[in-house]
Amino acid sequence: MARKKVAIVGMGFGGIRAARILAGHGLDVTLVDRNNYHLFQPLLYQVATAGLEQESIAYPIRAMARHWPDTRFLLAEVTAIDIDARRIRTVTGDISYDYLVVGAGSITNFFGLQSVERHAFDLKELAHAEELRNHILTAFERAVREPDPARKRALMTFVIVGGGPTGVEFAGALIELVHFVLAKDYPELSTQAARVVLVEANDQLLAAMPEKQRLYTLKKLRSMSVEVLLNASVVDASQERVTLADGAVIPAHTLFWSAGVKAAPIAAHLGTSRKHGGRVPVEPDLSLPGHPEVFVIGDMAYLEQDGSALPMTAPVAMQMGIYAGKAILAREDRQSLRPFHYRDKGSMATIGRSAAVASAFGMQFRGHLAWLVWLLLHLYYLIGFRNRTVVMLNWIWYYWFHERQVRLITRRRSSP
Amino acid sequence: MARKKVAIVGMGFGGIRAARILAGHGLDVTLVDRNNYHLFQPLLYQVATAGLEQESIAYPIRAMARHWPDTRFLLAEVTAIDIDARRIRTVTGDISYDYLVVGAGSITNFFGLQSVERHAFDLKELAHAEELRNHILTAFERAVREPDPARKRALMTFVIVGGGPTGVEFAGALIELVHFVLAKDYPELSTQAARVVLVEANDQLLAAMPEKQRLYTLKKLRSMSVEVLLNASVVDASQERVTLADGAVIPAHTLFWSAGVKAAPIAAHLGTSRKHGGRVPVEPDLSLPGHPEVFVIGDMAYLEQDGSALPMTAPVAMQMGIYAGKAILAREDRQSLRPFHYRDKGSMATIGRSAAVASAFGMQFRGHLAWLVWLLLHLYYLIGFRNRTVVMLNWIWYYWFHERQVRLITRRRSSP
Repeated sequence: MARKKVAIVGMGFGGIRAARILAGHGLDVTLVDRNNYHLFQPLLYQVATAGLEQESIAYPIRAMARHWPDTRFLLAEVTAIDIDARRIRTVTGDISYDYLVVGAGSITNFFGLQSVERHAFDLKELAHAEELRNHILTAFERAVREPDPARKRALMTFVIVGGGPTGVEFAGALIELVHFVLAKDYPELSTQAARVVLVEANDQLLAAMPEKQRLYTLKKLRSMSVEVLLNASVVDASQERVTLADGAVIPAHTLFWSAGVKAAPIAAHLGTSRKHGGRVPVEPDLSLPGHPEVFVIGDMAYLEQDGSALPMTAPVAMQMGIYAGKAILAREDRQSLRPFHYRDKGSMATIGRSAAVASAFGMQFRGHLAWLVWLLLHLYYLIGFRNRTVVMLNWIWYYWFHERQVRLITRRRSSP
Repeated sequence: MARKKVAIVGMGFGGIRAARILAGHGLDVTLVDRNNYHLFQPLLYQVATAGLEQESIAYPIRAMARHWPDTRFLLAEVTAIDIDARRIRTVTGDISYDYLVVGAGSITNFFGLQSVERHAFDLKELAHAEELRNHILTAFERAVREPDPARKRALMTFVIVGGGPTGVEFAGALIELVHFVLAKDYPELSTQAARVVLVEANDQLLAAMPEKQRLYTLKKLRSMSVEVLLNASVVDASQERVTLADGAVIPAHTLFWSAGVKAAPIAAHLGTSRKHGGRVPVEPDLSLPGHPEVFVIGDMAYLEQDGSALPMTAPVAMQMGIYAGKAILAREDRQSLRPFHYRDKGSMATIGRSAAVASAFGMQFRGHLAWLVWLLLHLYYLIGFRNRTVVMLNWIWYYWFHERQVRLITRRRSSP
């Protein structure tokens, strides 16, 4: 009898965990991703703010797959999924499957704001982080040469939209980059005039956090001189300015968008009606309704628990990946698993050096302790001992010397 | 009295040393480079072979200039030099000077072979190394999917032209990448069929080295199964094949060119006749004939010593940079320096793990010892304690685990 074939689309937090569970159990496992690496997205903002080299938060998929028996990797972009024929289509050929796990993640949601989509930076891929870092540093280089004081200031003004963890972490890391590092690099600029503006549509930051944490975050960011605008939203953008819903105009050369995500476009091929953000409703065992052989995990999956949808976060994706792997093995053993249940271990965000908020195990941490917990957990979840060492080295460096070394403006081909 | 203005064009090995000498002596020093970092070119080949992250061999110029009084940095591409008006032209404006130090380095010389120039990779800039690494890894990913055995083999065939230090080091590092690392990553490929072909026009490798070292290098590379073709040269190339002068055709998807360099194009603006490779003949004090206020250093400068031209190497550039800085200070003090004299401290090349050749202080080393000397000297000349630590970490990693972690195929914007 031929071995059954499992295909896993997307090697994010969920995909790699499903693969690890499934490997070595007599199934042929094919891993598909359009990148040849697993990306640790939560640290992209540190690459964008010159704190980490991009290579330190990416880990080659083949370096993992080496240790997984009967597993092969295919570098390919999935263009379609034929649910009925049980085939995945890629630019370089089709893959048939008996079981399918889809965890292709999410992309930025600009909610139809075309001018924003054209001009805003976001952070979902490794290349985005490098582009944003190049852009920030180039803005300072241009500010040096800019004779007009208004334009000089606009070059040093950074508008961040969205007061969730990504927006908060990026805002804190950026203002520290400006005040601690770039202030020394650019003696010819008055970097005190630089502005970091955090725009949040709601009346609070980190809405998922308990109130004390939210207030601490707001106060801390403001004390670091981040301008936090609550109940405000961006409606228009150009290369040189950002317009808010109330008509306010902020002259700024950099707009960063972290106000929403939606399921990866491949979700449209799964043949179901979709929920808010394009997410795919799944059965309690994470399978696609009517297709028990297809599992949807991570940001793409829509599942309610205790009356509300599970959040689009890494911990949810990880637990779903493990569950999907186990569910397939159970099916093969003619066993059944209890429905998926997400165990919320808490959430956290770092604001700056020695400042973070965390709520975990029913407890709440702020300041130094939360920051330490944040560091350790991120190191723990980062893949690869070498990556951990390099990241830790960078953090120690920054902590002791207030120094971020990766202040490089990298380019592809040289201009002629 | 206004301070005198010194402009230094090019922050390579020579430029940064001239700047360090000149800073803090009552002169206004302007540093100009089209990149915001100093690049440690000798290790580019290790970035290209997945051994180092690109950030670890680049160091921000402003991180150095911070410590240099009365020094400013300008990120700009120099488009012309008006020697008579004592002005440098850049896209973003002009800079006038009283003294000028030009050390813009060299670019690859394809000797008019247009098909080669179109298809070959070279290693002069940081982006080249990343592109080459992406290309090598992508070739293996394509080989996995390629059904035709001949094309599969061509995807795993790498032709390197030029048996100087760069060609030798790249060939050794590449074959080790294939045999030690990629062999484990690609169990579906017979990586023993991969070919690394080193093509050298002369009848020996590392022509500048003593005979014993040359023979050791040749034997060592061949024992590592690099195919070394002597007295051979490449005359034509396409995306899928390389043609040699004797008519031989090698089906290969990757061509790497390290068979020659020539002075950076800006040399044409210095108003002198030029020597072989576009180099600018200089006076014994490195100044431009007829223009004692202009100094030309490094790869761009042509100077004979003991009957032959000084080589286009980092040690020459470093010594010239220091000399030019001192010459300007001496001029200001109405003193004069003795003519520039290059002190040859030897040369070296690494072939593979625990294998290198070095000739220094009148002695010759081969194998383990030479390799250790090579490692230590490269760490010493690398700028920045953090970079040194990261590079050392990678080397230890590779030595112990035969593992190179930076096997990433990075891209700019995602394909749609």
